[in-house]
Amino acid sequence: MTEHKIRLGMVGGGNGSMMGDMHRLASARNGNFEFVAGALSSTKERADESARRAGLAPERSYASFEEMAAAEAARADGVEAVAILTPNHLHAPVAHAFMQHGVHIICEKPMTANRAEAEELATLAAARDTIFLVTHSYTAFPMVRRAREIARSGALGDIRSVRVAYLQGWMADLEHAGATPQSNWRFDPARSGIAGTLADVGSHAFHIAAYITGLELEAVAADLSTFGNFSALDNDGSALLRFKSGAKGSLTCSQLAAGNANAFSFAVYGSIGSLRWSVETPNELHLATVGKPPEILTPADMERSELAWWNEKGFTGFESYFAAFARLYADAAELIAARKAGRAPDAYAALAPTITDGLAVMRFIDAAVRSSKANAAWITPE
Amino acid sequence: MTEHKIRLGMVGGGNGSMMGDMHRLASARNGNFEFVAGALSSTKERADESARRAGLAPERSYASFEEMAAAEAARADGVEAVAILTPNHLHAPVAHAFMQHGVHIICEKPMTANRAEAEELATLAAARDTIFLVTHSYTAFPMVRRAREIARSGALGDIRSVRVAYLQGWMADLEHAGATPQSNWRFDPARSGIAGTLADVGSHAFHIAAYITGLELEAVAADLSTFGNFSALDNDGSALLRFKSGAKGSLTCSQLAAGNANAFSFAVYGSIGSLRWSVETPNELHLATVGKPPEILTPADMERSELAWWNEKGFTGFESYFAAFARLYADAAELIAARKAGRAPDAYAALAPTITDGLAVMRFIDAAVRSSKANAAWITPE
Amino acid sequence: MTEHKIRLGMVGGGNGSMMGDMHRLASARNGNFEFVAGALSSTKERADESARRAGLAPERSYASFEEMAAAEAARADGVEAVAILTPNHLHAPVAHAFMQHGVHIICEKPMTANRAEAEELATLAAARDTIFLVTHSYTAFPMVRRAREIARSGALGDIRSVRVAYLQGWMADLEHAGATPQSNWRFDPARSGIAGTLADVGSHAFHIAAYITGLELEAVAADLSTFGNFSALDNDGSALLRFKSGAKGSLTCSQLAAGNANAFSFAVYGSIGSLRWSVETPNELHLATVGKPPEILTPADMERSELAWWNEKGFTGFESYFAAFARLYADAAELIAARKAGRAPDAYAALAPTITDGLAVMRFIDAAVRSSKANAAWITPE
Amino acid sequence: MTEHKIRLGMVGGGNGSMMGDMHRLASARNGNFEFVAGALSSTKERADESARRAGLAPERSYASFEEMAAAEAARADGVEAVAILTPNHLHAPVAHAFMQHGVHIICEKPMTANRAEAEELATLAAARDTIFLVTHSYTAFPMVRRAREIARSGALGDIRSVRVAYLQGWMADLEHAGATPQSNWRFDPARSGIAGTLADVGSHAFHIAAYITGLELEAVAADLSTFGNFSALDNDGSALLRFKSGAKGSLTCSQLAAGNANAFSFAVYGSIGSLRWSVETPNELHLATVGKPPEILTPADMERSELAWWNEKGFTGFESYFAAFARLYADAAELIAARKAGRAPDAYAALAPTITDGLAVMRFIDAAVRSSKANAAWITPE
Repeated sequence: MTEHKIRLGMVGGGNGSMMGDMHRLASARNGNFEFVAGALSSTKERADESARRAGLAPERSYASFEEMAAAEAARADGVEAVAILTPNHLHAPVAHAFMQHGVHIICEKPMTANRAEAEELATLAAARDTIFLVTHSYTAFPMVRRAREIARSGALGDIRSVRVAYLQGWMADLEHAGATPQSNWRFDPARSGIAGTLADVGSHAFHIAAYITGLELEAVAADLSTFGNFSALDNDGSALLRFKSGAKGSLTCSQLAAGNANAFSFAVYGSIGSLRWSVETPNELHLATVGKPPEILTPADMERSELAWWNEKGFTGFESYFAAFARLYADAAELIAARKAGRAPDAYAALAPTITDGLAVMRFIDAAVRSSKANAAWITPE
Repeated sequence: MTEHKIRLGMVGGGNGSMMGDMHRLASARNGNFEFVAGALSSTKERADESARRAGLAPERSYASFEEMAAAEAARADGVEAVAILTPNHLHAPVAHAFMQHGVHIICEKPMTANRAEAEELATLAAARDTIFLVTHSYTAFPMVRRAREIARSGALGDIRSVRVAYLQGWMADLEHAGATPQSNWRFDPARSGIAGTLADVGSHAFHIAAYITGLELEAVAADLSTFGNFSALDNDGSALLRFKSGAKGSLTCSQLAAGNANAFSFAVYGSIGSLRWSVETPNELHLATVGKPPEILTPADMERSELAWWNEKGFTGFESYFAAFARLYADAAELIAARKAGRAPDAYAALAPTITDGLAVMRFIDAAVRSSKANAAWITPE
Repeated sequence: MTEHKIRLGMVGGGNGSMMGDMHRLASARNGNFEFVAGALSSTKERADESARRAGLAPERSYASFEEMAAAEAARADGVEAVAILTPNHLHAPVAHAFMQHGVHIICEKPMTANRAEAEELATLAAARDTIFLVTHSYTAFPMVRRAREIARSGALGDIRSVRVAYLQGWMADLEHAGATPQSNWRFDPARSGIAGTLADVGSHAFHIAAYITGLELEAVAADLSTFGNFSALDNDGSALLRFKSGAKGSLTCSQLAAGNANAFSFAVYGSIGSLRWSVETPNELHLATVGKPPEILTPADMERSELAWWNEKGFTGFESYFAAFARLYADAAELIAARKAGRAPDAYAALAPTITDGLAVMRFIDAAVRSSKANAAWITPE
Repeated sequence: MTEHKIRLGMVGGGNGSMMGDMHRLASARNGNFEFVAGALSSTKERADESARRAGLAPERSYASFEEMAAAEAARADGVEAVAILTPNHLHAPVAHAFMQHGVHIICEKPMTANRAEAEELATLAAARDTIFLVTHSYTAFPMVRRAREIARSGALGDIRSVRVAYLQGWMADLEHAGATPQSNWRFDPARSGIAGTLADVGSHAFHIAAYITGLELEAVAADLSTFGNFSALDNDGSALLRFKSGAKGSLTCSQLAAGNANAFSFAVYGSIGSLRWSVETPNELHLATVGKPPEILTPADMERSELAWWNEKGFTGFESYFAAFARLYADAAELIAARKAGRAPDAYAALAPTITDGLAVMRFIDAAVRSSKANAAWITPE
């Protein structure tokens, strides 16, 4: 923990947003950040009410992100980092506005509404030397980082196939209850971006495959569907993946999968072993090595790995999703402190998903959407 | 149970064959069959030894299926039905030889080594009015038949997506232990047919999707892989499915998936509900209906369905895999008896997978193999 | 497999008895037995009908076990072993009748209706040198035998506590459907013996604790209950266990536990490790060793143990419950052959539960029933 | 959320305490409390360091709870409520010191070190009209409150048996690593109180049985053990329970159960249905009703119950353990606000565990310890 608390702002995440609370509490978890300013809702009145409840000083509640970026830049004690929790179409404009002033970014996923925005942000981040963390939060689950460590150690042999799936059922409930077109920003291309379910949860699925294995995508063949008439975007889909190494993969995502609350899982198969994990039992990582009984790795196992720091740093006990966000904020704090001090960040923070990850995900989404429009032809990400 | 026991022969299934024992015991389960003749192994000596252990009269152990077909046809008490358990490439010749003599067929899956053989058999079966049952045994698990009943009742609404997967890991063990090319007939195209893992377990996965939902395949885009150098056939693959109704699907199969003994599962998602099942917990069928708590249907639930007969007929108690084979033999007996009597079979036996199922599976395999060779292009089964 | 097939008779197990079919098929599984005679039902007419369906020669269907014992003893080709599947109160008289003639016994559990009968049988078996196997069938599940091997190897350190539970819910369904007192022999002390659920399933729970660990019971404090008014015997209970070694235990059994089809489980905790198993996932044995990740042992793991024979002998593939009965019959065949040949049985058959096990279970039941009547006082088995 | 934030103090919960962070973050979750003062560690230096990191003003970090109670009472803005997170032996003195000044109490479990202390606190709380919440945190899990609602609705019929178990394995690891006697306050009677594992986790197990069912304990027969030589207190035990209604129960607790991280579960069996839950899958409540398929109730199901408020109040999304603590603090805030306003608390807060619960638990622990010393004789709580 650093002595200095990083001054944190937030755009979006106002009243009624579970994710707003999650980010605020997670940023407070380790004492690295103080939450000082926000443009929390889309109207001034609601933004102020949200700010009051979140304990902001009234003068630091803003009606718009443009106003906030300008005003905070003019303060000696202005925000040093900003968390972006808006609908997807605003991620890029908000990030852009703050990056102009050297503010670091903690951005919800998917990073942008489309690939072009992502590339522009990446160029800007490189130019401005900005820390830019994308909250692909599952990468901060202990057993996911452990999986990455194992997969990259060679313990699985050559990786041959990766299977990822992310299934939710809430849209089936909404549809049944009579959801109308565009009643939710996630159903609206103008706010959600070029993809629906693929961007919302498929993005996690693709990202985790790459995060754990380090494999780079060669091409994707995707078949996305829009069932029902309440959304203008994909709400169910499957894709075949080919990686540059010769490994293969499959990806499935749906938000119409009744009976699944939040079923996110991955499996990585190598020539001499496999790893399997599901967020439904997040503290169990199944490791099977040819010729040995399968093992169940748990956070206790971290003590036997290079990741022993995990427990030492006090991230167990709290459960996985909140702990993961807290871990990401701790990573962000370390990345920002290291950048400021001109030193390398510690090895743990170096595992956080950054703009490089966010960009790769947007390239995947872009390629998958184009593939689906081209009748599931193979498309290589640009 | 009929008074008359159907005289059963077997080709393949000799010493060392677990499936041979399975078929013999399953056929004996309900008293409908008596096992009287066989060409159980590929050499006369081993065939005779197998026959002796299986309790056959010495004169009814044959050195070849050709000899057996001819000799049995010449006996007044010759076999009325024959079970075929050979490597795939012999299924069609054996079936052909016996069908010529009006013998009914109970054939292991995949039905043949390729599509052409399957079509020829179908033509012959129609001409000869032969009962031809294919042992897609999972279709005889109680919760699978219950799933079919539910899916076809409309209780799930319009079916939108079907996801099937069949993962085994035994080839990874064999490879690690140094399996050499063609050491096993399953690795050898000359004996296995046009596909490896796709034919061996992917066939079950495709079949169950169709069996439960009644959906017909419009096209498949498959990406099959052959990893390692011990097999000349696919041992891992994924496919996208499109059904004529507009429903989508995905299929995954592998025998290199270390950590999976026999992980076969399906999920069917409709507009108002879903069904999920895995053979790893075969007596649990998960039914989720929008607006209600998810339910776990078990064999006890059969009492509340049109399938109540299941329990009445005494198929519970024994576990699922053996019970399924016993069920298929009971179905076969009823189909044969009904054909003989010129009446319709009972409703239960009408659920057994027949040559129509076997042919549809072979058409799928054929299309998927061609798709994979064409870089996962969409192929419509011929 | 021996050349000579042992001539097997059966008492009980007639029409409508799932266990009758189970025993007959299991005895046929490995070719060691031929089923030749029976007194299968309690009336001559039903016995004959059962015999006919089971394929017995008419003259070897008997109206009573007394008649059968006498008639078979008079034949040169009379039964060499008899399986006893009657209600509990007849186990001892039937066994007695056949043991008088040197017939070996395969007896369902609980071995007798009370302790005195069990002791008398044990004395007689010793005097007559009879093979007497009790079908505590769970002891023949592969992962249970593997658990025994591990627990007795010292790999768990000193065993400290053993927790066993056997929960079924079928009586709750029967009660709800209006079961009347004594409508089922299991509710009737005259036929079931001194205990109800404790004898029916608690017997398995106690036996497995002893079977795996080798611990001897010092005393039991049991609190048995009879809920509802449809049974005169206990249908729910819990007990505290103390073993002579200083280890402790707990046992729970119920047949009123709605929601449980057949939930039998054990856990053994030692100073450096533990084993856990449930019949609901019978092919998974969870081994946790202090300082290591937990492992999931499966039948594949048998290859790495002294029990590798299991797979070699072809007992996998078939599922657990049927395979277990087949294993017990194979054990019985080997014990009988070894006795005949005056040699020691092989190491596998030596693991089968015999009259020693059956007697220990009856002593436990006797002590637990007395404890419960004495307000759960500690009772040491006599 | 009330406008006024309740001023919260804390005793214990300093550096290195995961529970300290949990309480502070949970109290902040809903904006009802502000954390203003503490005696966080046992030495002044460590207390100050903890206070600094927790963001307290230096002058409100105290060296002892006595000093804190006096100083805060003297301030106009002194604490209105205090959270007690010390070792057990200090719960009563700390609570006593603050209750003297009318401060409300939020106390960790077990409430006190022994029954006499609990009774004295209960008397004092009644006299002082203090809100006194005991953090039996599992009672604030959504599916646990739903279980209570169902069990008390009569939907299970007459409750017949309750089975609770709480198994952890961490002491086995500590022992293996060479834990020495009294190296941890939980091993030390002077600080832990009259019981070890029974008080630490058995207390949760007993409490949840009573919380859900409303049953009152008639008597307990307990057999507690102290294995190894690193602790002077029980670390493993089982108990038989009898409730006044005639229902029976069993309770198991251990912290030597290698392989169990935190396995807490309950099952309640009634004449027409059952409920089962495990914290290992905390969002699944299994409801089985005679004559219907078993259902899996999840937080989504809350929408269909009187507890629909749960979701409306924003307690989902965060995971169960943290959400539960946040729920308890929200309950505490409402109880305090209602007391202040002289009105009844809302129905949700009325479900929080209070001193009545804490006292009942201490009476149970007292009776169980006496029972165990009396060779597991039945003891009725005093």
